[in-house]
Order: sequence, then structure tokens, then C-alpha cells
Amino acid sequence: MVEEVSTDTGARPAEKDFKRDTNYIETRITADGRDGYPVEADRYRLVVARACPWANRTVIVRRLLGLEDAISMGMCGPTHDDRSWSFDLDPGGVDPVLKIPRLQDAFLARFPDYDRGITVPAIVDVGTGQVVTNDFPQMTLDFSTEWTEFHRDGAPDLYPTALRSEIDEVNDVVFRDVNNGVYRCGFAGSQEAYDKAYDRLFARLDELTDRLAKQRYLVGDSITEADVRLFTTLIRFDAVYHNHFKANRNKLTEMPVLWNYTRDLFQTPGFGDTIDFPQIKEHYYVVHTNLNPSRIVPKGPDLSDLFGEHGREALGGKPFGAGTPPPPPPASEAVPAANGANYSPR
Amino acid sequence: MVEEVSTDTGARPAEKDFKRDTNYIETRITADGRDGYPVEADRYRLVVARACPWANRTVIVRRLLGLEDAISMGMCGPTHDDRSWSFDLDPGGVDPVLKIPRLQDAFLARFPDYDRGITVPAIVDVGTGQVVTNDFPQMTLDFSTEWTEFHRDGAPDLYPTALRSEIDEVNDVVFRDVNNGVYRCGFAGSQEAYDKAYDRLFARLDELTDRLAKQRYLVGDSITEADVRLFTTLIRFDAVYHNHFKANRNKLTEMPVLWNYTRDLFQTPGFGDTIDFPQIKEHYYVVHTNLNPSRIVPKGPDLSDLFGEHGREALGGKPFGAGTPPPPPPASEAVPAANGANYSPR
Repeated sequence: MVEEVSTDTGARPAEKDFKRDTNYIETRITADGRDGYPVEADRYRLVVARACPWANRTVIVRRLLGLEDAISMGMCGPTHDDRSWSFDLDPGGVDPVLKIPRLQDAFLARFPDYDRGITVPAIVDVGTGQVVTNDFPQMTLDFSTEWTEFHRDGAPDLYPTALRSEIDEVNDVVFRDVNNGVYRCGFAGSQEAYDKAYDRLFARLDELTDRLAKQRYLVGDSITEADVRLFTTLIRFDAVYHNHFKANRNKLTEMPVLWNYTRDLFQTPGFGDTIDFPQIKEHYYVVHTNLNPSRIVPKGPDLSDLFGEHGREALGGKPFGAGTPPPPPPASEAVPAANGANYSPR
Repeated sequence: MVEEVSTDTGARPAEKDFKRDTNYIETRITADGRDGYPVEADRYRLVVARACPWANRTVIVRRLLGLEDAISMGMCGPTHDDRSWSFDLDPGGVDPVLKIPRLQDAFLARFPDYDRGITVPAIVDVGTGQVVTNDFPQMTLDFSTEWTEFHRDGAPDLYPTALRSEIDEVNDVVFRDVNNGVYRCGFAGSQEAYDKAYDRLFARLDELTDRLAKQRYLVGDSITEADVRLFTTLIRFDAVYHNHFKANRNKLTEMPVLWNYTRDLFQTPGFGDTIDFPQIKEHYYVVHTNLNPSRIVPKGPDLSDLFGEHGREALGGKPFGAGTPPPPPPASEAVPAANGANYSPR
């Protein structure tokens, strides 16, 4: 399954078409503990970076389900060198729980010869200091289906049994053409590979526009896993992908259905409050020196309209189904308002 | 007056703040011939490139004034190497009139030791093969004031005596903060220099927005030299500067007054018919490998709305004053419709 190894958010320029390393550590944390890692409060630490769209999924789902008290969260800084993500935001540059400076230490603790990507999100077994998994597509599904014992009262069902096949189907094309599609634009190794990726990306966005013009959420009448996965790419679209990855047919602000869909979710508790635009921009523009040798980070775009009226309520549906919105994040995990909710060009 | 030498469209990364070489060959072609080069039909050849905003000014003014029959035009291709602009679009890679492959040949014919920028626009004395001038700010003013004998019937007065001081004043700030301001964003040598250039650029665009919200053209009631100079930057804004130079607070499409002003001029004979988007995009993204090492040219943006309703007629004024619009360009100088008037992402 490995196509190419990468220590980035999964991105590396390939010869022509960009290929993502999809060979993750597939150990699962389950209620029955069949892989040796049972669901258990205070045992695991989720390691993320605000910048990373794949990690962002886990941050959102953990918030929506209220798993903060059961699974602690460590936060890597927005940039990294070729030894991958580090805890440079923490005092002393060391994660206060894991007591390590770099995420790779947890990978090497379990696999001394580990030579694949050191990626966020990752879940670490705090007692042993060993990484359990970095298999991000499975991680959020397991939060929804294996960690139910620790869900908050009013937690939404993000992966309802009756809708799973439709959610999986949507996730599949969204991953290929959008989540990973923007990377295929940005890391294309030839004009032809780029052109092809651009066409696929915007054809898919047009198709999603048609779908979302008629319904508030991607699948069913409430927020599901599918919305989480699309949101984490769309919220980075104008801030990064439009310019940095040359995904520039239109800005999202020029695609009203998708822009309103994104604003709707951004304004929903659990989504916008996980977004840190300065970290997002710094990550991409500083780490990818092959795309931006100067490492200068754009001041724009002006995103002040993210809090504008989106009008999506008129399409019906209930964001949390039979559940309720999550309370605000704990202070220790709150994004400074100036970086997210009140973000404007520096 | 020389600040830095450049063989580009004037652009080169400086240590910190980008400085433009403004040391041009200041010989003038005048009605009285006081510099040895009198105004004379069929004697001079204007050498331009569709890509270059500074050359674009001369192409527009020559069109508006109907100087096509008096001054022929040679066309360099969109990209060049370190020996500067070449006639690679012409059969055999040689200009059919000057019989030279590279613009530098005309510069060296006059100044064998010439070591400054080989820039377009340039005017060459066909008989001697020597460059006369590359002093672009003077060139268009001389088209308006020295070449009057050869103006077409109905040519507009682009530099009316009564408005000259106001036009000069507007041109001065537009040059500093906008025309050259976008380059200062793109070629900044530090985050601080970039931030400063970005702030100046958008502050000036906001000020121009206030001005143009109340009047159709920058100075007076008709098109002047000032509009030509602002247009050539604005028409490249979304296609290049927004992404490539990180001038990304907003796209022009998100700044309605400036967008409508630009569409109004684009739809005016003599303006839009000089614009070749594929050449513009290829120039910047292929030549500036320090900004875009991959040389991949973005497919976007979608500019199909350039022909939309701009509503600027409501502000009054007459585009050509007491004059008339120019006829279509000669077939040999027409931009293929797919590259300009009907441009859409490749």
C-alpha cells in the first residue's frame, strides 16, 4: 500500500503525479482491546498540529464527542524540519505529558527502525511512550464507534449505522479529488500532472456544489464524519491552497454554495474554534521551500467575512441531530481569538 | 538614479526592499529632433512583449492614438533567459524588420558596453538598428505630445495640458505603490519588507477605490494616461500578482469598484484587445524561478466575468472625450480571442 514515504503532512513532490504514502500504523484502540490497546480514559495522548488538515479532523471529532477528558491532546508547532514534527510550542520544547521533544521519539520507541512518515495525528500510549497508531482515517471513526462509553451527553452521531455506506462513498471521492486533490495540484511534478489534478479538483467541487445547493450537510440531515473531512480542506482553501498549491480557478469566496457551507460549519461550535490561521499559513509557506523558497508568509487573505450570514439554515436539518452543541473548549486548548474567530490579515 | 540593474521586466530580488533600476536610456524622439531623433513615419520600431505591464502601456497608447501606421511593432515572446527578451515568436526566431534574434542586439549596436537592463518597451531606429530609448514613462507621453502629426482622426487627448499636473501626481503614487508596489511584494527579501509593501499596496488600492467610486476615470471625465498606467497592473492582478507576488488581501474580483473599473477599460477598444493572458501568466511563472521553481503555470483564474456588466456608465464621462474609439487592430497585431477576449482557464 505504500506509494511514497513522506515526513510532511503527507506531501512530497513526486516524479510526476503526486502519490501519498498511505501506509500507516494500523493498530486500533477498540472497546474490546483486540489489538492490545483497549479504550481507557487517561491512557492515551492524541498528538496533533493545528496546521495539519488530517490532524484537524481528530481535533474536531474529539471536541464534538466531548472526549477531551478521556483523551489528552499534545500540540506540535506549525513548522518542522526533516526530523518531522516537534513540541516547540511547549515550555522547554518538550511535551509536558510525553516528555519528548519530537513526535518521532514515540514512533521510534515502538519501532526502533521505523522509516516511514512521522505524521500527525498520532495517538501515543502514555505509559510506554509508544505510538499506537497514526492511521487518521480510522482514528475518527473509532472515536465515534469505539469510544462511546466516554462520549459526552448530547454527543452527535457522526457515523450513523444507516448512513455509513453513503458516508464512506462520499469520503472516498472527497479524499481522492479534494483532501488529497489539492496536494496533487501543489506537488505535481509536471504541467500535465498539475493540469489533470486541477481539473479533477474543480470538477469535484462543482459536483459538491450541486449536492450542497440542495441540502445543508453532505449526508443526511445533520453533521457527519463526511462534513468534518470536507471542512478541514475547505477552511484552508483560500488561506493556502488557492495560492500555494495553485488551486486557483476560483477562491472559495467566489463559489457561494461552498463558501456558505464552510462558513456555516466554521460558525458551528467544534469546528471554527479548532482553526488557527497563522499556524496554518506558517506551516505550508515555511515548510515547503520547494514551492516557496523565500519562506515569506502571505499576509492575506482577508477572511473577515467568515462570520457573515450564510443562510444555510433555510435548507433545514439540525446540526447535531438529536444531540447538542459542545461547550467551549477548555482554556488550555482554546485558539487565541485573533488567530481564528477574529482572524484578519496580520 | 540607478538603484539596481535588472534584465527582467525590471524585477530582481534585492537584499530586503526591492529596488527597481530606473536608469533608462533617456534619448527622446521629438517633433523638433533635438536629441537627433525626429518624429518620422516608418523610421522607428517599437519592441514590446505582451506579457510586460510597462510595454503594455505603449501598446495601448499607440492603439488609442492610431500610431500603428507610423510606428511598426516587434513582439518578443513571453519568456526569456539571462540574455533577456528574444524574438522567439517570429519565424526563425528573428524579428522580420530588425533582423535580430534578441533585443540586446539593438542595445549593443548603440552602446557596445551596455551593462544595464535590456528592457521592453524599447524603440529602435530601424535604419541603424540602434536602440533609441527604453525610457517607458517618457515614451507614452511623447506618443501623446510629440507624435501629434500622425495621430488618427478622433484620437483622444490622453495628456491634456490643463490636467497634466494632476495626472503626474496620480501617476507618481500609482507607480510607487501599485505598478511597482506589486513587484515590491513579490520580490521582497524579508518578511518585513513584504509586509510593508503589502500594506502600502492595499492602502493605495483602498484610496483609489474611494476615488473611483465617484468618478469613472482617474482624472477628468475621459480616459487619460493615468488610466492606462493603472489598468496594465490591475488587469494582471488576479492572473498573476494575487498569487505569484502574494498580493493576496483580496482578489480584484472582491474589490467591486476596482474590478468594475478594470472591466470597463478591458471592454474599451484599445485596452482589452492588447491583453494576452497565456503570455502574461507564462512570463511570470516561468521566468521567476526564484518564486516558482517548478515553472508550472496555474490554470486559473477563471476570468470569464471580465465581460460582465460593469455599470460604470452611470458615473458619467465620455471614454474618448471629443474623440472616438480606435478601430480594431490590424490582423497581424490581433491577440487570438482565446487568449484575451474569450480567455478561460486552459
